[in-house]
Amino acid sequence: MKKIYRVNMTDLKVREEPLAKEYERLGGRGLTSSIVAKEVPAASHPLGSENKLVYAPGLLGGTSAASSGRLSVGAKSPLTGGIKESNAGGTAAHKLARLGIAAIVVEGKSSGDTAYVLKVSSEGVELVPAADLKSLGNYELVERLRKRFGKDISCISCGPAGEMLMSAASIAVTDREGRPTRHAGRGGMGAVMGSKKLKAIVVDDSATSAVKPKNREAFTSAARVFTKALEEHEITSVTLPKYGTNVCANLIQEVGAYPTRNFSTGEYEDVDKISGETQRDVILERGGIATHACLPGCKISCSRIWVDKNGNYVTKGPEYETIWANGANCGINDLDAIATMDRLYDDYGIDTIEMGVTIAVAMEAGVKEFGDAQGAIELVKEVGKGTPLGRILGNGAAVTGQAFGVSRVPVVKRQGLPAYDPRSIKGQGVTYATSPMGADHTAGYMISRNVFKIGGYIDPLKADGQAKASREMQISAALVDSLGLCLFVTFATDDKPEAWEAVRNMVNALYGWDLTEEDFQKLGKSILSTEVDFNRRAGFCDTDDRLPYFFKTEKLPPHNSVFDVSDKDLDGVLKF
Amino acid sequence: MKKIYRVNMTDLKVREEPLAKEYERLGGRGLTSSIVAKEVPAASHPLGSENKLVYAPGLLGGTSAASSGRLSVGAKSPLTGGIKESNAGGTAAHKLARLGIAAIVVEGKSSGDTAYVLKVSSEGVELVPAADLKSLGNYELVERLRKRFGKDISCISCGPAGEMLMSAASIAVTDREGRPTRHAGRGGMGAVMGSKKLKAIVVDDSATSAVKPKNREAFTSAARVFTKALEEHEITSVTLPKYGTNVCANLIQEVGAYPTRNFSTGEYEDVDKISGETQRDVILERGGIATHACLPGCKISCSRIWVDKNGNYVTKGPEYETIWANGANCGINDLDAIATMDRLYDDYGIDTIEMGVTIAVAMEAGVKEFGDAQGAIELVKEVGKGTPLGRILGNGAAVTGQAFGVSRVPVVKRQGLPAYDPRSIKGQGVTYATSPMGADHTAGYMISRNVFKIGGYIDPLKADGQAKASREMQISAALVDSLGLCLFVTFATDDKPEAWEAVRNMVNALYGWDLTEEDFQKLGKSILSTEVDFNRRAGFCDTDDRLPYFFKTEKLPPHNSVFDVSDKDLDGVLKF
Repeated sequence: MKKIYRVNMTDLKVREEPLAKEYERLGGRGLTSSIVAKEVPAASHPLGSENKLVYAPGLLGGTSAASSGRLSVGAKSPLTGGIKESNAGGTAAHKLARLGIAAIVVEGKSSGDTAYVLKVSSEGVELVPAADLKSLGNYELVERLRKRFGKDISCISCGPAGEMLMSAASIAVTDREGRPTRHAGRGGMGAVMGSKKLKAIVVDDSATSAVKPKNREAFTSAARVFTKALEEHEITSVTLPKYGTNVCANLIQEVGAYPTRNFSTGEYEDVDKISGETQRDVILERGGIATHACLPGCKISCSRIWVDKNGNYVTKGPEYETIWANGANCGINDLDAIATMDRLYDDYGIDTIEMGVTIAVAMEAGVKEFGDAQGAIELVKEVGKGTPLGRILGNGAAVTGQAFGVSRVPVVKRQGLPAYDPRSIKGQGVTYATSPMGADHTAGYMISRNVFKIGGYIDPLKADGQAKASREMQISAALVDSLGLCLFVTFATDDKPEAWEAVRNMVNALYGWDLTEEDFQKLGKSILSTEVDFNRRAGFCDTDDRLPYFFKTEKLPPHNSVFDVSDKDLDGVLKF
Repeated sequence: MKKIYRVNMTDLKVREEPLAKEYERLGGRGLTSSIVAKEVPAASHPLGSENKLVYAPGLLGGTSAASSGRLSVGAKSPLTGGIKESNAGGTAAHKLARLGIAAIVVEGKSSGDTAYVLKVSSEGVELVPAADLKSLGNYELVERLRKRFGKDISCISCGPAGEMLMSAASIAVTDREGRPTRHAGRGGMGAVMGSKKLKAIVVDDSATSAVKPKNREAFTSAARVFTKALEEHEITSVTLPKYGTNVCANLIQEVGAYPTRNFSTGEYEDVDKISGETQRDVILERGGIATHACLPGCKISCSRIWVDKNGNYVTKGPEYETIWANGANCGINDLDAIATMDRLYDDYGIDTIEMGVTIAVAMEAGVKEFGDAQGAIELVKEVGKGTPLGRILGNGAAVTGQAFGVSRVPVVKRQGLPAYDPRSIKGQGVTYATSPMGADHTAGYMISRNVFKIGGYIDPLKADGQAKASREMQISAALVDSLGLCLFVTFATDDKPEAWEAVRNMVNALYGWDLTEEDFQKLGKSILSTEVDFNRRAGFCDTDDRLPYFFKTEKLPPHNSVFDVSDKDLDGVLKF
């Protein structure tokens, strides 16, 4: 039976308990959201002692299922004020699952000033004071942790941005090389971790082995079908490995939805300088790694390793969202500058999307000029130093917009919009508006339907049909996030019904269940309903499920489109 | 017939139109809220071109009715995101009314960078470019305006805080001495004025006379009854003139609801050093003015003139709310320091309540120590300079709390709570929670019932009966704000039904109407409903009508009380 560890930061005690019956069919996002919704008073302050921070591997965590090692982190969000699940790759989730851990729940709040490390291994779970680690950047931190606790550990950590309680702070998870490059980025989960004074969790899974399926044969057979689908689909087997996530730059530019200079046009004149194709060329020329898996067992390998002109490691990727947010959206056409920012973000522990959106808002206010790469890097460094300017920026686009009196602030539920302009990819706009997570592309990735024509094409410029499709994609995302799967597997599973069936077969074989597709759909809906209900209690209503006004009134070149999906359509998306 | 001027800042044209039939029975708050609710898209950005800033004298403006010269200013609020009416004393409202002006509506948004002055006189209304006035503090500004436009003008102006688009920026109105000391303080109306690039309105009412009542005899007779009530009631005739608004310091301390050091206790150990009694002694000793009327025709004269140790003018009052917010609430016991802050706030054009609440939140974060008067003054100066720290503070307590990661932030609808702790004066808490204005004491001044025992006593520590009483007081406040009366007249009118009847008789005699008390009540309710409806469309719902969580869980000494009025009670307050 799986177990939960409750780590109480008020009395510094750790308690082990069996996974409660009501939670036994939940993992990842399903589990974090259920625990948060049940145990955190919806009206309480996200940085108060009542908030709980929940880490959970997905249902397929710890198995050999391809691309299944995502780690979900959930809490009440200091950025949105609503419920939040944010997930990351890296090596930690598989290890937690192999240790039989369904979730770690961090509760209460330390009254002291000492930083703590939570040590997790087959010998148990223990809080270790670690005053010397306070305020360390993630890179230096994980180096010290690996020296102290062994080089094969996984680290889940909070950088200085989280310790400074910034609403855009992320939680870092180490990758296969032991670097803190994979982040539960969105919604300020790092600030919740910082508020608890928990600097890091180190996970040591030595003396464990892969989770054993109840029905090994059926599992292996289903896993094979699933893996084959990933290996055969063009996007997961060719496009993403070759050009990485940033292949989207040219694709989204082509449909006129590549938000440029704070969402003022849908085409970036310098896209060629920062596209996935260019990125690949530069990486190969410099001797970086052009195809790299962010977690063990990944069959897609859409990440990469960026090196400087001398061939020295700088950072992972950077990924599409990062390059867009800190590139086109800031009018910056310099991949090296963007990589420098990405490295700083990972080191400080802060969301690369929120920060790029924020810097563009600051640029709109005239704090720096659009296109000023060095100026942008200076702004990022202010965040690391925690200066007043850094505190404005580190708390995200909504705060920055208010601080500087900007009226065009691209946020929903106070979270910055990702890399697809909702005026020209309207289905994505529906997800931004209605997801309980705030503006989030992964919460219902409509690019599949609106651009890649996977699972049925819907014209991105038309309002019709977007609401229904976004609902389906949001249910699917809730499931995928609960299984610990990477969202990108859905390119294959949405195209091949038998691949999606194989996913369900893996789950059934692993646990000895017999979930039907209907059960799966019910589960996805119930996760979303749980989240929506928490948000209602926390103060959200239908009118919070809206895009900012300027998306409805300001026409986006080149299509001169506005977001015109009706409020009625939006209101129906997550009412089941 | 009264007229409206529409000042379009996009094309810089001024248009005169007659007051529309639907608005003819409205003035002050009733008129500003109706125009804003009807004409401003509820979802639009408060600093965008769609917002409208409406200035309106009350229905009794321009007459000889005692204490009737309040000026209402309304718009969508950059602080709360909801509808806002904020009103001020001073001399402008009477003059606008004498000019036959029901409202000035400032629309659109100038694309240029020039500041403008709106000149209003019996010759018409005209926009005058005034680049040289940009960024001036209110004191220097009004001096220059009086030199340019004549010493008898009234000025309605936006200080540098408004020009910097800070959400706590106020709009100043000159007092009888021509100083910019009376402010429409709450909700960031100054930022809306700043966003329109309208630096000031100058009002010249020469060649006009008092508004002529339709039925002069009836008006004079009713006005006499009303004035007599003010002259006879102990609070309006003795307490307030003698000790000023700050008489409340000792009174609210006595009931254990004087919020101290960011609402952490209800008693301030140094209250004697900043009380109304002490303030009076110091003023008299230094040769200041201990009893002073903030507007012409006032029969209460609760304000005063504060001078320094050498007898030189510093500022008006300071008033109770200012002394509390920047005094007890920051642990500061120095009236001179508080007066210095008050003067700076008036000069920058920023709300003294929001700023005091904000500085206390910053102190809770450790930016300065509680009690550090010089440190607090330094913080205020950061606001004037518009440094990043100043931009955090100048955008109010909610932004400051987020910037510094504070979990105890006393705001409702993102507006800071005034000087009465809702845990020990629960009726006031109901008003804070439910008023469409955000946390506002004047929106339904339950101190009358909970402390002064006027209009029926309700035990301030009990939850029962508060909701119903707050509803009654909110209806009354909406009416009083629409008539242009000072809220303090209600001490007399709530105690003497014939005085309230006299108010209605004045209105009827003035306009030739025959409004019954039932009509009056209907009008009050309809104003509130209009405001609530706008807020619903702007994104508020029942769960926004709540106090911050810590008021429900953290016990307030000395009564160790929490706010326990039920959500159900709160939800019913403004549903008519």
